[in-house]
Amino acid sequence: MRAIRIGVAAPGSRIDAAIAARVTQLAEAQFGRRVVLHFHPQCFLSCGHFAGNDKTRAATFLELANDPELDAVWMARGGYGAARIVPRVLAGLTPLAAEKAYLGYSDAGALLSALYARGFARVAHGPMPADSLREGGDKAVLRALSFLVEQAPDALESSVDGATPTAAFNLTILCHLLGTPHEPDLTGHIVMLEEVSEHLYRIDRALCQLTRNTKMQRAAGLRLGRVSLIPPSDPEFGQTPEEIIRHWCADSAIPYLGSADIGHDVENKIVPFGVLRDRKRAKT
Amino acid sequence: MRAIRIGVAAPGSRIDAAIAARVTQLAEAQFGRRVVLHFHPQCFLSCGHFAGNDKTRAATFLELANDPELDAVWMARGGYGAARIVPRVLAGLTPLAAEKAYLGYSDAGALLSALYARGFARVAHGPMPADSLREGGDKAVLRALSFLVEQAPDALESSVDGATPTAAFNLTILCHLLGTPHEPDLTGHIVMLEEVSEHLYRIDRALCQLTRNTKMQRAAGLRLGRVSLIPPSDPEFGQTPEEIIRHWCADSAIPYLGSADIGHDVENKIVPFGVLRDRKRAKT
Repeated sequence: MRAIRIGVAAPGSRIDAAIAARVTQLAEAQFGRRVVLHFHPQCFLSCGHFAGNDKTRAATFLELANDPELDAVWMARGGYGAARIVPRVLAGLTPLAAEKAYLGYSDAGALLSALYARGFARVAHGPMPADSLREGGDKAVLRALSFLVEQAPDALESSVDGATPTAAFNLTILCHLLGTPHEPDLTGHIVMLEEVSEHLYRIDRALCQLTRNTKMQRAAGLRLGRVSLIPPSDPEFGQTPEEIIRHWCADSAIPYLGSADIGHDVENKIVPFGVLRDRKRAKT
Repeated sequence: MRAIRIGVAAPGSRIDAAIAARVTQLAEAQFGRRVVLHFHPQCFLSCGHFAGNDKTRAATFLELANDPELDAVWMARGGYGAARIVPRVLAGLTPLAAEKAYLGYSDAGALLSALYARGFARVAHGPMPADSLREGGDKAVLRALSFLVEQAPDALESSVDGATPTAAFNLTILCHLLGTPHEPDLTGHIVMLEEVSEHLYRIDRALCQLTRNTKMQRAAGLRLGRVSLIPPSDPEFGQTPEEIIRHWCADSAIPYLGSADIGHDVENKIVPFGVLRDRKRAKT
């Protein structure tokens, strides 16, 4: 059996080489010769906030996306920077890029969403190499690898049924796509949202915006993932994240469908953009 | 001469009664019987994060906006909450409301923008009663009053020329209008932006979104007000706010027109939405 070849690029913030070493070790221990991981040196570059400048990050992403020898492109980390390179990436994709799997979350969602809008069939939200830094993070990394290498069904978020199209986003990242040419059309999709390190009033403000978006009002419904590390507010906001999303779903007549097993943590599950396609079907 | 009657409502966060007392005292000392200030009791209500619930805040705003005895509605404070009540407010405005002046900034910008889009001719960005809490804040409050009472030209931001339409926004508040039915059309306007307490990467992210908005690309240009209380980033972002806005203006071919004398501070000047109309012209 041919090994699954995974290229890793950092469209936003950089990672340390130690992360690449740890994840490579994990992959070898779990999957042996069934996987080959290629961490592009761009992952370790530094240019202010970013893992190299926009030109470099976009060129690296395209180098991997268009590489006929690779099966998947894995985002090394979130942070910030993916949205900046979306136009350059979209301008440079070749038909070969459409056959690959793409995996990441958080900041990377801006890029994943653009690839999905382009018609790519194997785009998914899920853990990244940088998750290995979390306590118990090996579990998240291995979940991502088991999805990329053997499409393990138990890596998927449990409400993903293989029939209803889904998408998953960091709430703030999704809001920053609204009103731009990259605003997603998720008509008929179950949209799962998660958030980290945002005040409750900001979560409310973001959901107010999102649920007033007419495209979003055509979603099949929203699910709420984990909202973690909420900074304290004075006065207290007075509503939980679930109460907030229920309010805005009721206000906009978007169905609220319950919780989602995603978040900035080691339990973060895989959510396909659209309906999950396996490698064979994607290539035919 | 009939006194200018100003009603004060709090569309977002509440204020303490001491602010009302201080601002009333200032107004009397400076303008005597030329001004009557009415702080609606709603300003002092408390409902979690807000100065009363949505229904109460919207009803109060409408009570003042539709009151034939008032000349102006002044927003007491920013915080968060104006965007939430925009649909209720728009649904309840009567023709009387269109004749008044409206003044506020920051969170209130969501409401000001909606009133301007409705065709209201006397909407402006400028200081609010809560600015009296700042060191030297009396100056800001008196500037706002001199604009509302006597339309003092020196209260205006210095680049306002009376011919080119303008608008001013808190950057984050403006971004949260994008992709909603309340996304502003500022074709031909000079748009002034200010920000407070946001990391540089967030300012970059917001300007990336804003300058990709096709309506915003029809603006006559952007000006950058003060960007204050920027929290530190690790790693350092590596660009100043001016470098960031210059980058995004160049990227989107929106002219960058220089600085603007606005911000979350006591020097914050008045910026009309559109071309400044005086009271007489507004009423004819």
